[in-house]
Amino acid sequence: MDLAADAAALTAVWHDRMPLTTALGVEIGTLDGERLELLLPLAPNVNHKGTVFAGSLSALATLAGWSALWLVLREAHEQAHVVIQDARIHYKVPARGDVTARVALPAGAAREKWLGALGKKGRARLGLEVEVVDAAGEVVATFEGRYVAHR
Amino acid sequence: MDLAADAAALTAVWHDRMPLTTALGVEIGTLDGERLELLLPLAPNVNHKGTVFAGSLSALATLAGWSALWLVLREAHEQAHVVIQDARIHYKVPARGDVTARVALPAGAAREKWLGALGKKGRARLGLEVEVVDAAGEVVATFEGRYVAHR
Repeated sequence: MDLAADAAALTAVWHDRMPLTTALGVEIGTLDGERLELLLPLAPNVNHKGTVFAGSLSALATLAGWSALWLVLREAHEQAHVVIQDARIHYKVPARGDVTARVALPAGAAREKWLGALGKKGRARLGLEVEVVDAAGEVVATFEGRYVAHR
Repeated sequence: MDLAADAAALTAVWHDRMPLTTALGVEIGTLDGERLELLLPLAPNVNHKGTVFAGSLSALATLAGWSALWLVLREAHEQAHVVIQDARIHYKVPARGDVTARVALPAGAAREKWLGALGKKGRARLGLEVEVVDAAGEVVATFEGRYVAHR
């Protein structure tokens, strides 16, 4: 695993081919092989109340889940695409500053089952949970997304 | 009802106080007193597959619902704030071009009940459905958001 190369490749896709990621100001905070954390600054995402626009939180969580699966596919040398089918998001408290989205990289049996189904059927679903926290570690939003990989 | 003034006031809030709306390139398409339609161009929201980034669709739908309630409060001369509590979104097909988010403005008994609860309790919830369609009118995503107004 070359995490630095993975992170560089992921941010290249964002910045070269997904212009909204630049507008959001999103960056990789942590990528340690177990989890991915994305940082979102308040300033470009502020709303009229001085908190983070809910649509930015939703876009951040959507991107975090997609990025986690993109990283798993890259590590597995699997040439599949990932799309999101469904998502739910719950906004708990307003985010008054920069936030971080956290997602566990699929591992162990869940990862093997997903990659196995993709190999056999050319298509496989996976649900992911993403938590968005503020600088004090308080959870501001929880997100569940159902993603589909297909060859 | 002065719809042109309402539309100008809404876009002033977006552009002056919510910078991501400028990055999204969102504009009011239709505001006819019964419904609000927001236009989102593909170019600033494109992803690596040439379709609209799911996070942009989610942000668009979130903004459409919030904007519909902002307009109802403005018409009612009600000084309340609106925040979103929960949302679900279902992505049906990839959007290969510009899209439109459509939301019916709360009217009749639903509107009266919501404004009445806000007047009595200082706080009132309302669920809204938003549809996102492509240029051919095909539904690309459906969204349900639960919003809360509070004084």
